[in-house]
Amino acid sequence: MSRDLVEKRLLPTLANPILSRLDDSAVIEAPGRLAFTTDSYVVDPLFFPGGDIGRLAVYGTINDLAMVGATPLYLSLALIIEEGLPFGILDRVMRSVQDACAEAHVNVITGDTKVVNRGKADKLFINTSGLGIIAEGLDISGSRARPGDRILISGVIAEHGVAIMSSREGLSFSSEIRSDCAPLNGMVNAILEAASESIHSLRDPTRGGLATTLNELANQSGTSFLIEEASIPLSDDVRGACEMLGLDPLYVANEGKLVAVVSPEGAERVLNTLRGHPLGLHAAVIGEVVEGKPGRVTMRTRIGPTRLVGMLAGELLPRIC
Amino acid sequence: MSRDLVEKRLLPTLANPILSRLDDSAVIEAPGRLAFTTDSYVVDPLFFPGGDIGRLAVYGTINDLAMVGATPLYLSLALIIEEGLPFGILDRVMRSVQDACAEAHVNVITGDTKVVNRGKADKLFINTSGLGIIAEGLDISGSRARPGDRILISGVIAEHGVAIMSSREGLSFSSEIRSDCAPLNGMVNAILEAASESIHSLRDPTRGGLATTLNELANQSGTSFLIEEASIPLSDDVRGACEMLGLDPLYVANEGKLVAVVSPEGAERVLNTLRGHPLGLHAAVIGEVVEGKPGRVTMRTRIGPTRLVGMLAGELLPRIC
Repeated sequence: MSRDLVEKRLLPTLANPILSRLDDSAVIEAPGRLAFTTDSYVVDPLFFPGGDIGRLAVYGTINDLAMVGATPLYLSLALIIEEGLPFGILDRVMRSVQDACAEAHVNVITGDTKVVNRGKADKLFINTSGLGIIAEGLDISGSRARPGDRILISGVIAEHGVAIMSSREGLSFSSEIRSDCAPLNGMVNAILEAASESIHSLRDPTRGGLATTLNELANQSGTSFLIEEASIPLSDDVRGACEMLGLDPLYVANEGKLVAVVSPEGAERVLNTLRGHPLGLHAAVIGEVVEGKPGRVTMRTRIGPTRLVGMLAGELLPRIC
Repeated sequence: MSRDLVEKRLLPTLANPILSRLDDSAVIEAPGRLAFTTDSYVVDPLFFPGGDIGRLAVYGTINDLAMVGATPLYLSLALIIEEGLPFGILDRVMRSVQDACAEAHVNVITGDTKVVNRGKADKLFINTSGLGIIAEGLDISGSRARPGDRILISGVIAEHGVAIMSSREGLSFSSEIRSDCAPLNGMVNAILEAASESIHSLRDPTRGGLATTLNELANQSGTSFLIEEASIPLSDDVRGACEMLGLDPLYVANEGKLVAVVSPEGAERVLNTLRGHPLGLHAAVIGEVVEGKPGRVTMRTRIGPTRLVGMLAGELLPRIC
């Protein structure tokens, strides 16, 4: 049955010469430096405003590759299917996977399918691992943030988490809030072409949101981060929804945004390049890296005083991705 | 919580310089041809005679790399954990992962952890993806079987499936049957050193067992396979257990065996090399590739006449790996 599923439903959607060879491993030519990453997607519900588990599984892994400056090339795709999942659902997800791959110029070259009994998984879990190529000389890492660097975000925050949460709770707001899920490799490519030497760190603020990502970067580089609340792009709809849901948007997941830590000289150039890209229209400089206690993130609030911005404690939104 | 889990329980077990960098993707130098593969492991129970889900997740993926002649180097490790899984269980699995990696000379360089609510997964699912390097000039593929080639198996069949099944059913046989789960990269390396040019195809007969693997290879190469029942290594214990459980050992999963399709000139050399390896003591030539209907596998039975050996129809043993 599993074989049938693979041959009739999964392979035709994804067909490419490497995958179609059907040996135990895919074989590729890959000279030079590679990025390798993995993520499992357990998002609930499978379909939500602005996306679905299939798009998320492709974009999420592509974005992790892009965050070390890699050009994503290849994905693996592993499905854990709960017995009884309607084929129509699986087909829709697979079409999303295919569309997302085409959009981001990547191919699924190896895969796996497991079916578990009803009640032993929840509908569908997807794991994707990704491979990308890193250009010679590029060194982008969370460890490279330095005092004086500017901290940029590529657009409004907290859309993905709010979209999932409101869809799960059956809430609807005046205008439907859609997940921002999108592939970031094109935008990363643009800023690398514009100013690769000034980009020190990139990270996409997914689980745990912007606050958690800033804490990770400050920790990894042993620096302090100071951000301005008033500079953080946030739509009125999302702000209102967060108030209703009792969420702090700083901790709500994004799936199509990036944080860039950029040398002071390169900041304006990177900002303008982000704003020139369809996914970066609302990009902003939100703060800077400062001397101080390693790993500390503080925020100057709208009303004046600064406050500490800690890591997310506890799981704010389970199964958000 | 997830972060705590990762930092306190998972990273310390797996520590290596690439993983410890903790960027969104691991970065590696990888010149040349690579093999890339993925598998999810949903085996039930998590611990069984001869192995556990951790060992299986490492060996299974390594073996898929070895089956295209690659030297396995790097793994990703993605856990889907059911809320409430005792930490002691997770720790035991992680120690197994670590031991298996050390044994097979691979490193986990990137990972992911998701926790889902109780009842939304069954204890623990693991996905591993793997990367390996393929030597220049090597071309091992299921498509390369040619009439005249000899078909070898590296040892007794059906142990893994029987071990899982009897452990799940609470059966015990006179002597406990243990899973054969083992990393095959060392043995593959030995036969490649001995006779790389004569090895056309390699495949590990996991889900669906030997019969399914032979069908896959015959299909992929457009040849017919003829095997001898009397030549297939099978222990008396496993034969007896299969009779009791109503299983055909030809369709029962293995996790530490390989099928090799080898040119007639190289067959004896490969056989002797297999037998000289601790995992290949009972290796045997079990048949040969013949002219005939593409994809057909026939078996000369112990009592004389030949019969067709089809693909596995339906799922014989769910959650076997």
